[in-house]
Amino acid sequence: MEKVEDQNPQQEEDQVVNPWEVSAKDGGKIDYDKLIDKFGCQRLDQSFVDRVQRLTSRPPHVFLRRGVFFAHRDFNDILDAYERGQKFYLYTGRGPSSEALHLGHLIPFMFTKYLQDAFKVPLVIQLTDDEKCMWKNLSVEESQRLARENAKDIIACGFDISKTFIFSDFDYVGGAFYKNMVKVAKCVTYNKVVGIFGFTGEDHIGKVSFPPVQAVPSFPSSFPHLFAGKDDLRCLIPCAIDQDPYFRMTRDVAPRIGYHKPALIESLFFPALQGETGKMSASDPNSAIYVTDSAKDIKYKVNKHAFTGGQETIEKHRQYGANLEVDIPIKYLNFFLEDDAELEHIKKEYGAGRMLTGEVKKRLIEVLTEIVERHRRARAAVTDEMVDAFMAVRPLPNMFD
Amino acid sequence: MEKVEDQNPQQEEDQVVNPWEVSAKDGGKIDYDKLIDKFGCQRLDQSFVDRVQRLTSRPPHVFLRRGVFFAHRDFNDILDAYERGQKFYLYTGRGPSSEALHLGHLIPFMFTKYLQDAFKVPLVIQLTDDEKCMWKNLSVEESQRLARENAKDIIACGFDISKTFIFSDFDYVGGAFYKNMVKVAKCVTYNKVVGIFGFTGEDHIGKVSFPPVQAVPSFPSSFPHLFAGKDDLRCLIPCAIDQDPYFRMTRDVAPRIGYHKPALIESLFFPALQGETGKMSASDPNSAIYVTDSAKDIKYKVNKHAFTGGQETIEKHRQYGANLEVDIPIKYLNFFLEDDAELEHIKKEYGAGRMLTGEVKKRLIEVLTEIVERHRRARAAVTDEMVDAFMAVRPLPNMFD
Repeated sequence: MEKVEDQNPQQEEDQVVNPWEVSAKDGGKIDYDKLIDKFGCQRLDQSFVDRVQRLTSRPPHVFLRRGVFFAHRDFNDILDAYERGQKFYLYTGRGPSSEALHLGHLIPFMFTKYLQDAFKVPLVIQLTDDEKCMWKNLSVEESQRLARENAKDIIACGFDISKTFIFSDFDYVGGAFYKNMVKVAKCVTYNKVVGIFGFTGEDHIGKVSFPPVQAVPSFPSSFPHLFAGKDDLRCLIPCAIDQDPYFRMTRDVAPRIGYHKPALIESLFFPALQGETGKMSASDPNSAIYVTDSAKDIKYKVNKHAFTGGQETIEKHRQYGANLEVDIPIKYLNFFLEDDAELEHIKKEYGAGRMLTGEVKKRLIEVLTEIVERHRRARAAVTDEMVDAFMAVRPLPNMFD
Repeated sequence: MEKVEDQNPQQEEDQVVNPWEVSAKDGGKIDYDKLIDKFGCQRLDQSFVDRVQRLTSRPPHVFLRRGVFFAHRDFNDILDAYERGQKFYLYTGRGPSSEALHLGHLIPFMFTKYLQDAFKVPLVIQLTDDEKCMWKNLSVEESQRLARENAKDIIACGFDISKTFIFSDFDYVGGAFYKNMVKVAKCVTYNKVVGIFGFTGEDHIGKVSFPPVQAVPSFPSSFPHLFAGKDDLRCLIPCAIDQDPYFRMTRDVAPRIGYHKPALIESLFFPALQGETGKMSASDPNSAIYVTDSAKDIKYKVNKHAFTGGQETIEKHRQYGANLEVDIPIKYLNFFLEDDAELEHIKKEYGAGRMLTGEVKKRLIEVLTEIVERHRRARAAVTDEMVDAFMAVRPLPNMFD
């Protein structure tokens, strides 16, 4: 479910956001308000944050209270049902196109883990190795190898094995899942997918065939070993907003084949080190912090490549303060520094010019190094047996406990 | 793998032959020589018939010696390899769109049974319930039910259970089969399938996704339970020539993904009772003899609806003789009357006007009634347990014996 860059959009538009391309107008910033309008989703306002806190009796996740997850579709229905005692299930995923994940890749998984813990609900995680085989021209074997490697990073995020099923499409497509794929495919014309995804006639038919594969984990009947007899179970999908096109299509089809529309909770994009106009690129390792980066790598990348809103000279900085709107260290701290008071303090001091860029970067390096070190330790503890256990097609008898 | 009629061809051509439409120019007859030229397959000449007889030490099947199977692709390679001691496997199939089969549906199965017995080779039979669910707008459940019903008719043709695997796509798609579907899909552009199959933008994406499903049984790696470690095994596909587009696509892709091209042996279409310009239509039960027809039905249909080349009056008939070129009883006898000498006698006498239409029809009614009765008895003996046994995913240890 990650963005790839080998595709041109059909539309002439201000900004382009689809599963394979995210680009703002004229190198500017993504306008998320416009995106919400264009996609037709809803803004996730403070009332939701409060309601989640009340329903789960725990502090809302930093990504929720700071608006990283900023948009939704029918999240209110999920909460209404939950309040009536009806549980739901979570669905998220990843396209395994690279060996090492960067921090942006971890965001949906960190947030999904929080949702799983807070709501005590089961989770399915789709590894779209078929997609990456087709879009990135990887071999089937290499796509599956990457899927397993990525599964280790995902498991390292701390998911509860008694509530979590991770699957590779190459392994799992078939049976009830394939039947749902056919049901979805019957309801979507070629012109429709061209409108949604911008395919051209020279794209291979694997691309045209794929949207139903990402659609059907939204339906509990795709997982008979988990949800047999629970066809009414609702699905909530935490994802970055570039995945919205898949689920707009899914929501359009769902009632026509007798299923609930999946609900969505959608995040901002995690910016590149070079700034929000830049883009994290697999071909430029300096555009992102990878979970495989050493402390030295992190220090170098932040110090050398992080775009800042600090002024050119110390004198000017003391006088005008930093421009927090464009400052990447502040944006990264907004994602990853959990202490609200400390973040406010840094923003205030830095914005007023009393704190220097170097000091903010130093704090960011500490925060990122700790996250990456913690992830690396957790990942090192993930064995092949654990991967097999998470990926085994099995019932989860305690998934709602 | 049967023709459906809900699709318009894109091309303005003399005659249209694709998996969903067979129509001759201006209501005339299909020009099979033109079809061979257009499709780029080869004519199956007498030398093949002789060679098959020599290699299998048994008389060639009536469909072979009378040119019902009249075209091929690389059948010579199959025979060369067979002569060197290398076996192959057979692949055929059916789209389960109706409860009852007509005689035309049985032709590829009758011939495939002969090939299985003569060459002593394994056989996979694909029931494309997914295709019919999508093209005929049947429910998943109804498509699967029809697939099982049709499997009984297929089993009744006498296939050897120790050499035969019958599968429904809804049951079997997945794993190695799905991996091959993705490999094929990557190699075929949307423009290409439009050129081959005539899809339009308003067709649903299930149609665009389907060609790889029919393609991949051509590759032994799609059946690891049968052919593990036998990736070099060649595949021979007996089918009606309207299926050629699927396998032209398959043959185009095969070498690009490291597989042998499947070979083909292709039949004429079985004509409608109303004549070769007419078409057997599911909506007109009088256009075909069904395997469920009673002796009375057969008698009525042949006497009432079979188009003949006999003359208007007995006097004229005695004088000019019958036009055998358009005579349906003669054409049907050409398919189903096994005795070559008797057929020649009938053609000679009828063509010279010494035999009357009524006499020829009487003989045809006898022949068809016997075939249908024999089929009905065989089908009645097919139990659900036998269907389960043929469709079980299992190794076939004696498949080459």
